[in-house]
Amino acid sequence: MKFCNLCGAPLILLVPPGDNFPRHVCSVCGEIHYRNPKLVVGCIAEWNERILLCRRAIEPRHGRWTLPAGFMENGETTQQAAVRETCEEACARVEIDALASLISIPAFDQVHLFYRGRLVDGDFGAGAESLESALFTEADIPWSEIAFQSVTLALRAYFADRTAGRFLLHEHDLHC
Amino acid sequence: MKFCNLCGAPLILLVPPGDNFPRHVCSVCGEIHYRNPKLVVGCIAEWNERILLCRRAIEPRHGRWTLPAGFMENGETTQQAAVRETCEEACARVEIDALASLISIPAFDQVHLFYRGRLVDGDFGAGAESLESALFTEADIPWSEIAFQSVTLALRAYFADRTAGRFLLHEHDLHC
Repeated sequence: MKFCNLCGAPLILLVPPGDNFPRHVCSVCGEIHYRNPKLVVGCIAEWNERILLCRRAIEPRHGRWTLPAGFMENGETTQQAAVRETCEEACARVEIDALASLISIPAFDQVHLFYRGRLVDGDFGAGAESLESALFTEADIPWSEIAFQSVTLALRAYFADRTAGRFLLHEHDLHC
Repeated sequence: MKFCNLCGAPLILLVPPGDNFPRHVCSVCGEIHYRNPKLVVGCIAEWNERILLCRRAIEPRHGRWTLPAGFMENGETTQQAAVRETCEEACARVEIDALASLISIPAFDQVHLFYRGRLVDGDFGAGAESLESALFTEADIPWSEIAFQSVTLALRAYFADRTAGRFLLHEHDLHC
């Protein structure tokens, strides 16, 4: 980050008055450019006790399996983000039940939210960012081919809860 | 957002190939500048059945009462953000129990998280952004002087749970 996105002038890194952190501040218009963590929101979508996974058609982790998930957009709620990502990546309609996992990844400036949900009609497919989608029983989850550690954590917590017969919110910190 | 913060060239609003939303794209270097919701993280900190509130010394809502909360910073976890904000705004040390409320505010591109916690030693004060801090019983909460609707929602859910003798995660969408 080198230039002000409002006026185009060079930025200076300094701690503004009353602040505790260095910020990128415009040398001309004085605008403070904050940088904050991003939310990645996804869905653990079940159909007949099987879970919907997508195989990634994009980097990073091309060819690996993941839960449908992606960056939350402005103007939507977290549940709307989970529904949209499941539609975009797996061409599937889902009804959301509740938040299942919240995972902070401070090294990547991200917070991942995974919701529990159910496919509406069992239909699914491969969106533009997926090579394919498929339903997996717990025994068939391709654990060694999961794209992201947060997805592994969310899936393991989900299956443990399902076995226990009750669902909780699981919170994890991932230090990469 | 008018200029690229990497090279200073003008931005163009367009839907990049493979995307579904208009983005600000640099006309020279091609960088895509995404804008995403921000996390606001705070704490419902209890001490002897009373809740810690801060009276705001800054706009918006100068003079109104709020839970200690603020924008999550890069490089921290959500719980670390709740602890830091409670320290900065109320000069109080807090131990976190669990997430109590998640509130999406799509019109403001924000997601608010409020954790339940307990003051470590009962000490508190007024940080740079607070006029004062104080502990309130449920009966004494100044409901008509609360700064933000999300804080009202989180407090009401907290007291309802405390009365019921069990704590849940509450999820709300605020449409302003």
